[in-house]
Amino acid sequence: MLGVLGGMGPAATADFYRKLVAATPAARDQDHIPIVIIGDPRIADRSQAIESGNTETVLAGMVQRIRSLEALDVDAIAIPCNTAHFWLPSLEQETKIPFISLVEASASEAKRRAPTGKAALVLGTRATVRSRLYEPALAGQGFRLVMPTEQQQTVVDALIAGVKSGAMEEATRLFRSSVLEWLSHADVVLLACTELPLVAGEWLHTHPTMIDTTAALVSACIAWAEMDTR
Amino acid sequence: MLGVLGGMGPAATADFYRKLVAATPAARDQDHIPIVIIGDPRIADRSQAIESGNTETVLAGMVQRIRSLEALDVDAIAIPCNTAHFWLPSLEQETKIPFISLVEASASEAKRRAPTGKAALVLGTRATVRSRLYEPALAGQGFRLVMPTEQQQTVVDALIAGVKSGAMEEATRLFRSSVLEWLSHADVVLLACTELPLVAGEWLHTHPTMIDTTAALVSACIAWAEMDTR
Repeated sequence: MLGVLGGMGPAATADFYRKLVAATPAARDQDHIPIVIIGDPRIADRSQAIESGNTETVLAGMVQRIRSLEALDVDAIAIPCNTAHFWLPSLEQETKIPFISLVEASASEAKRRAPTGKAALVLGTRATVRSRLYEPALAGQGFRLVMPTEQQQTVVDALIAGVKSGAMEEATRLFRSSVLEWLSHADVVLLACTELPLVAGEWLHTHPTMIDTTAALVSACIAWAEMDTR
Repeated sequence: MLGVLGGMGPAATADFYRKLVAATPAARDQDHIPIVIIGDPRIADRSQAIESGNTETVLAGMVQRIRSLEALDVDAIAIPCNTAHFWLPSLEQETKIPFISLVEASASEAKRRAPTGKAALVLGTRATVRSRLYEPALAGQGFRLVMPTEQQQTVVDALIAGVKSGAMEEATRLFRSSVLEWLSHADVVLLACTELPLVAGEWLHTHPTMIDTTAALVSACIAWAEMDTR
């Protein structure tokens, strides 16, 4: 049974679940991965917490939901939110249940897509970017972290806020107007906020050096479930 | 907190979650409905159970998951599966937590869409159709239940199996080749298996007398959450 600490945000969690179901090799319901999703959007804003340095309230909120997942006896936990991975080392101290890291999964996927690549542009919340969340995992795969420019970050901020408020069409247009510039900027581009793939559409299929971090987490979860049944 | 008894099937549950998030009036994560989804596809096949008369195993499986939702202190339970509503009267005996009935929500939606309509064609699993699951709720809204012909049922069976096995393109083609005939057959057509709306696409927007039962359940859940916060 896979546990999901979700709701950060809700649209990204729903996107994760949809992609998980679609990517699971299954001929009938019973072939799918048993899953429990705690989609509780009342956990305080992660980016604000990191930027203000007041990270304890968010940690307490996450730990409370992890206690629920423990009570339901899940075998592993996935968190379909990049920024939340800032707290992963702390969460790993709080429970014996293993986590399937979205950050590690995404860095591995970057290596598969661009085996000789060196520069990885990470697009996410300001908190994800400034905390250099991806730097160790990317370094482990031979990549150098490329930070977005202030102009790029402003566009990403608007995209994330757009998805969170349901303004999908406007966000999709904004994405399209920026994506080629991003791709010219590095060997791989990580859409390192799970809201971003929601407006990427066909670009994810036609531009393999753009990484959908939600899909990378999905692949890691399916690999985990397959290992588990062997 | 909304509890969801899901995984029957997984694609339908993911579709329910996506539609719930998209339909919720929200400007930020914290405005969304807190939700726990138990998406456990190991519950035995509902249609087979009803057709064979061996309904106890499925009931036991559902009750076990409802105990988990009780432990998580949810305030209401939704089940995004039509056939599972066969067990709703038994489940209501098992817990004090109220259920948001997909069947009642869909019959009300049918009335809104076709206020003067009389004939309601219900398309779903053989078990949903033969057990006349919708008859009381539809009668309460002034509709007469129209049963599908054997030929129509064969198409519906193939559609549901197609979605459950991930053969979406084939199922979508089959849906398109049948939908006009269905619509000519009654005043409203209920897509009374949550797998069916997954292949309906644009038809749901252009043909208001075709009812997406997943969307009807979503609307009822949002109305419940709004009542709750008043």
